[in-house]
Amino acid sequence: MSKKIGIIMGSDSDLPIMKEACEVLEEFKVDYDLQVISAHRTPEVARGYALDAENNNFKAIIAGAGKAAHLPGVIAASTLVPVIGVPIRTSTLGGADSLYSMVQMPGGIPVATVALNGAKNAALLALQMMAIEDQEIKDKLKTYRKSMRDEVIKTSNKLSKKGFKKYLQENK
Amino acid sequence: MSKKIGIIMGSDSDLPIMKEACEVLEEFKVDYDLQVISAHRTPEVARGYALDAENNNFKAIIAGAGKAAHLPGVIAASTLVPVIGVPIRTSTLGGADSLYSMVQMPGGIPVATVALNGAKNAALLALQMMAIEDQEIKDKLKTYRKSMRDEVIKTSNKLSKKGFKKYLQENK
Amino acid sequence: MSKKIGIIMGSDSDLPIMKEACEVLEEFKVDYDLQVISAHRTPEVARGYALDAENNNFKAIIAGAGKAAHLPGVIAASTLVPVIGVPIRTSTLGGADSLYSMVQMPGGIPVATVALNGAKNAALLALQMMAIEDQEIKDKLKTYRKSMRDEVIKTSNKLSKKGFKKYLQENK
Amino acid sequence: MSKKIGIIMGSDSDLPIMKEACEVLEEFKVDYDLQVISAHRTPEVARGYALDAENNNFKAIIAGAGKAAHLPGVIAASTLVPVIGVPIRTSTLGGADSLYSMVQMPGGIPVATVALNGAKNAALLALQMMAIEDQEIKDKLKTYRKSMRDEVIKTSNKLSKKGFKKYLQENK
Amino acid sequence: MSKKIGIIMGSDSDLPIMKEACEVLEEFKVDYDLQVISAHRTPEVARGYALDAENNNFKAIIAGAGKAAHLPGVIAASTLVPVIGVPIRTSTLGGADSLYSMVQMPGGIPVATVALNGAKNAALLALQMMAIEDQEIKDKLKTYRKSMRDEVIKTSNKLSKKGFKKYLQENK
Amino acid sequence: MSKKIGIIMGSDSDLPIMKEACEVLEEFKVDYDLQVISAHRTPEVARGYALDAENNNFKAIIAGAGKAAHLPGVIAASTLVPVIGVPIRTSTLGGADSLYSMVQMPGGIPVATVALNGAKNAALLALQMMAIEDQEIKDKLKTYRKSMRDEVIKTSNKLSKKGFKKYLQENK
Amino acid sequence: MSKKIGIIMGSDSDLPIMKEACEVLEEFKVDYDLQVISAHRTPEVARGYALDAENNNFKAIIAGAGKAAHLPGVIAASTLVPVIGVPIRTSTLGGADSLYSMVQMPGGIPVATVALNGAKNAALLALQMMAIEDQEIKDKLKTYRKSMRDEVIKTSNKLSKKGFKKYLQENK
Amino acid sequence: MSKKIGIIMGSDSDLPIMKEACEVLEEFKVDYDLQVISAHRTPEVARGYALDAENNNFKAIIAGAGKAAHLPGVIAASTLVPVIGVPIRTSTLGGADSLYSMVQMPGGIPVATVALNGAKNAALLALQMMAIEDQEIKDKLKTYRKSMRDEVIKTSNKLSKKGFKKYLQENK
Repeated sequence: MSKKIGIIMGSDSDLPIMKEACEVLEEFKVDYDLQVISAHRTPEVARGYALDAENNNFKAIIAGAGKAAHLPGVIAASTLVPVIGVPIRTSTLGGADSLYSMVQMPGGIPVATVALNGAKNAALLALQMMAIEDQEIKDKLKTYRKSMRDEVIKTSNKLSKKGFKKYLQENK
Repeated sequence: MSKKIGIIMGSDSDLPIMKEACEVLEEFKVDYDLQVISAHRTPEVARGYALDAENNNFKAIIAGAGKAAHLPGVIAASTLVPVIGVPIRTSTLGGADSLYSMVQMPGGIPVATVALNGAKNAALLALQMMAIEDQEIKDKLKTYRKSMRDEVIKTSNKLSKKGFKKYLQENK
Repeated sequence: MSKKIGIIMGSDSDLPIMKEACEVLEEFKVDYDLQVISAHRTPEVARGYALDAENNNFKAIIAGAGKAAHLPGVIAASTLVPVIGVPIRTSTLGGADSLYSMVQMPGGIPVATVALNGAKNAALLALQMMAIEDQEIKDKLKTYRKSMRDEVIKTSNKLSKKGFKKYLQENK
Repeated sequence: MSKKIGIIMGSDSDLPIMKEACEVLEEFKVDYDLQVISAHRTPEVARGYALDAENNNFKAIIAGAGKAAHLPGVIAASTLVPVIGVPIRTSTLGGADSLYSMVQMPGGIPVATVALNGAKNAALLALQMMAIEDQEIKDKLKTYRKSMRDEVIKTSNKLSKKGFKKYLQENK
Repeated sequence: MSKKIGIIMGSDSDLPIMKEACEVLEEFKVDYDLQVISAHRTPEVARGYALDAENNNFKAIIAGAGKAAHLPGVIAASTLVPVIGVPIRTSTLGGADSLYSMVQMPGGIPVATVALNGAKNAALLALQMMAIEDQEIKDKLKTYRKSMRDEVIKTSNKLSKKGFKKYLQENK
Repeated sequence: MSKKIGIIMGSDSDLPIMKEACEVLEEFKVDYDLQVISAHRTPEVARGYALDAENNNFKAIIAGAGKAAHLPGVIAASTLVPVIGVPIRTSTLGGADSLYSMVQMPGGIPVATVALNGAKNAALLALQMMAIEDQEIKDKLKTYRKSMRDEVIKTSNKLSKKGFKKYLQENK
Repeated sequence: MSKKIGIIMGSDSDLPIMKEACEVLEEFKVDYDLQVISAHRTPEVARGYALDAENNNFKAIIAGAGKAAHLPGVIAASTLVPVIGVPIRTSTLGGADSLYSMVQMPGGIPVATVALNGAKNAALLALQMMAIEDQEIKDKLKTYRKSMRDEVIKTSNKLSKKGFKKYLQENK
Repeated sequence: MSKKIGIIMGSDSDLPIMKEACEVLEEFKVDYDLQVISAHRTPEVARGYALDAENNNFKAIIAGAGKAAHLPGVIAASTLVPVIGVPIRTSTLGGADSLYSMVQMPGGIPVATVALNGAKNAALLALQMMAIEDQEIKDKLKTYRKSMRDEVIKTSNKLSKKGFKKYLQENK
């Protein structure tokens, strides 16, 4: 069975954010498994998912959730596959609820938490974990970073050259 | 089997707070079951506890936890017995982490959250739930409230009479 | 007189949130009484409401309020019927004002607080309280949970099968 | 009956803060009435206190409370005497709970909120309100402010002259 | 010279909020003086305004400001006329910046702070201060409160009678 | 080489805010250099920029960034040119993330932080730094402040004269 | 060269927290390299450390820092080795500064953030990453988790058996 | 008259923090003037101080204040000398009150805000401003930074060599 990344979210309303993780993995041609699992509404599914993660050859699990965002912690409690948490920003409390619920895990069961709505970074972190022992992914990550860097430099040169007024007009 | 209240906490470090729930229930002569259960370190125990709650004749479950305080939510996901959450104040984030993790539950699975370190109120809330159909407990609650009220009035009279200086000297 | 749930709110501007509690109770065919009561603008009405709650056969009271959200606490002070607080998110302070005013009740008078805008969960919590001694409601709650669970699983299967692009296109 | 300021607090544990209001009023030789009243544990006392405030010739009411600090709002709801709220800082949430519960009053019923633990300023504010029509108090307030100013200037001169090392040694 | 309330704000962008204070005072037929004063951009104007406040027969000053909302504190430092602060909610920090800057005044110089955007309550508080020695205003305040109360009761009756669906349809 | 102010930002999405710094400097006829530099995506560019700042005759550097806003700190670590940080408000955490990341620098490496989205003030602060030894800029700053003051006074007079209703109608 | 975990911190004042990561790795007999590196005071050291990380056979880097906690982000910007951030709680802002500065990384450069002061979990997360391709570590992690679980159960049994009073007496 | 830095604070209780600014300036042999000035208790002194700052040859002003920390803003409003604000952490609101009151200045009047209790950095920032046109100070700053860097490296080497146990024993 090929190596995979598991991507789960608490509700399909999280998909417009979480799809960014899918897009990164597709760009890297890494398989992923995409599901909606609720820690609270489908606790047995969550448990089964965590217990099977290793057998399903998941190398990391990316879990997005909002508000009392227990999903990544609940999964992490039942598997040794690293779990990456994406706190989803909702309209309450500026997102502090999602973030605190996810990152403040008790001693023993870590969740690797990324930024609010940081699904893209969750995928990149999963790839960096895989790259520890996978030179091919590491090489792709190097290329990816170089291209990000080049993009920033290109933008900067364009802005320097055109000045802010013209730049803003052309990039509305 | 007699009616009971379940009292659980994520760690025995929560006991100096959670014992206040025990003390209230003892005062009311209501049975309780006291355990340490970690949503993350003992997920199977948590699951079993929730699934057995009804058969064990628990009328309410009081769950105290701190930081990413998932315990009440995880229990609530697997039982219909009302779960009362006590967010434990730790030294981080003023306790907002414990509170948000507990109260911001998703639609479908409520946790009845009380104040930070509010174990006493958790017990009183459990008793009020039982009192819906139990006149004896209701009568005791009336007496309890009356005695609280009398205590405040007595304190107030003492303070009014003595003045703040003498009162503070005598009540250091 | 039939068993009832009291539903109150501080202002009719809270109704678009609080109506979710009504909808759940209607789905469960449980009677409810719906009023607008302001702890500050109509203190005598609030007091009378609380004092009459038991005689009106209210088994629980759901109170929604925003900002300095005193309503549930004020009601809870004058009745032993369990009071469930729904902090309404307004545009200030991310909703922390409503939440803190409601949940941080002093020792002696608990308010069972649910999530910001969590009117649906307030109704479910009220039903869980009633279900302690009412098998019929308990059975309906089991069905309700099962249907939530099935809904999540159906959504997940659909998403897994279609992939995120197609899913998002079809569910805009 | 002489003009008075009412000073109330939710619990005698607030007295070490609230006594600063007493001290200021004693310095100004303005009568005050000091009581412990709990909005939640003694709601009828609170109500009676508010309804009688005008007849008792209270010109302002200073109310200190912590956490879900409803006391000033509850009093303000039943009297037209201006109510000054002192949010008491407790160990939870940095005091934001006390502050938000007090200051975020709904339209119609204001509470004049001062700083966390700001009992001294509450008394000065009450005096400024009385001074609107009382020249004697106004004159005393002028003297009080002048003496504060002189105290700051004296401190500053001492610090400038001695330098910080010597100043800190002598004022440990 | 007739008794007046001073109303100031840091910028005319605060006017859509602050005008609610004007409207209340007009309803009570109490004179007011309306100005834009910036504590930072026009410090000399602010100083002159405060020093002249008593001579101008201001009975209270209502000052609205946002972010580092120093205006009420700066005015309060140079007059004994009571200053009521209205923290204006801007888009940053949920309004906590405006609120904290205003309410957390140091010992000696109080600012009576009302809710975020609470201009209406600021006017009512000013009127309550004036009513300490002005029976006519007190009588109007009684009528005002009665009419608020009646309004809430009317709304409640309408909602009870029509049910939430019909009520929402008719009050969109 | 003429004296310059460096203006950098973490992403061109910050430009609608940061352009206000450009506008102020253009008004003062002070040269500036405008670039997009990411502390994380282009760390070598950031390093080179900081190391060259003095040779490029930058008298101050204005750096805008959002969320984990490391850019000004990273630049400040490698140059003695004063660095002014502009925390950009994004949709998360009310902007507290940007602000805290920027202002809470460790002992040894200061960043002069201005308000959230305070690009205009960043430019004025840079000019005030230059004005320490540049009388021409100081004179222009005096004129600038005078014109701000006059603008506030003009607005105030207009508002006083027209009243709030007419003013709001004419300034929608 | 043997596989290693890099452990760095911004100051030796973080060592009482960060040593917990060392202790876990020693328990697992995994090599680690321990250094103090300041992102701001020693930027060149930080850069060199990141650039050499892969050659030094670091499989993960654990970076602890407080307040404007840039260290993990700065390291992550210059290496593909996964960086795990430990926000150190200091006395300011409840630790929100350290947490936000660390977790809110921009798209492209993730930092795997754990709880405030969560050095133990940082080490466990690093081990879980290594365990993706290292069965021996995975087996040790299983044993570690089992022993945590047994510890909780033992504590729970002791508490259930003794009751809270006796338990608290014996475990002071 | 020699070039000077002005150092002011709202109360002598801020001196244990603010003295760190004095110590840095003494180390650099730069003159400073040290005073206690309260924006609210001594507004005329504050005004005079700001108006005289330029004539007194102040090149920068460092102002420390806590809670509603208006001092730096009030000074900045009446001088063009750059004002550096040091928010003092008090026991309320985690210090957010001091920070927000200081940093969130309105457009036109900047305050260069440093970290909570960051008096040392305030002095270094003042020196960096002076160093724009003062090569001697710049050279001293270079030496200062080098010595900070060497100190970190020395600490790191010591820790690496001794290991954490021995290091902690020796540095208790």
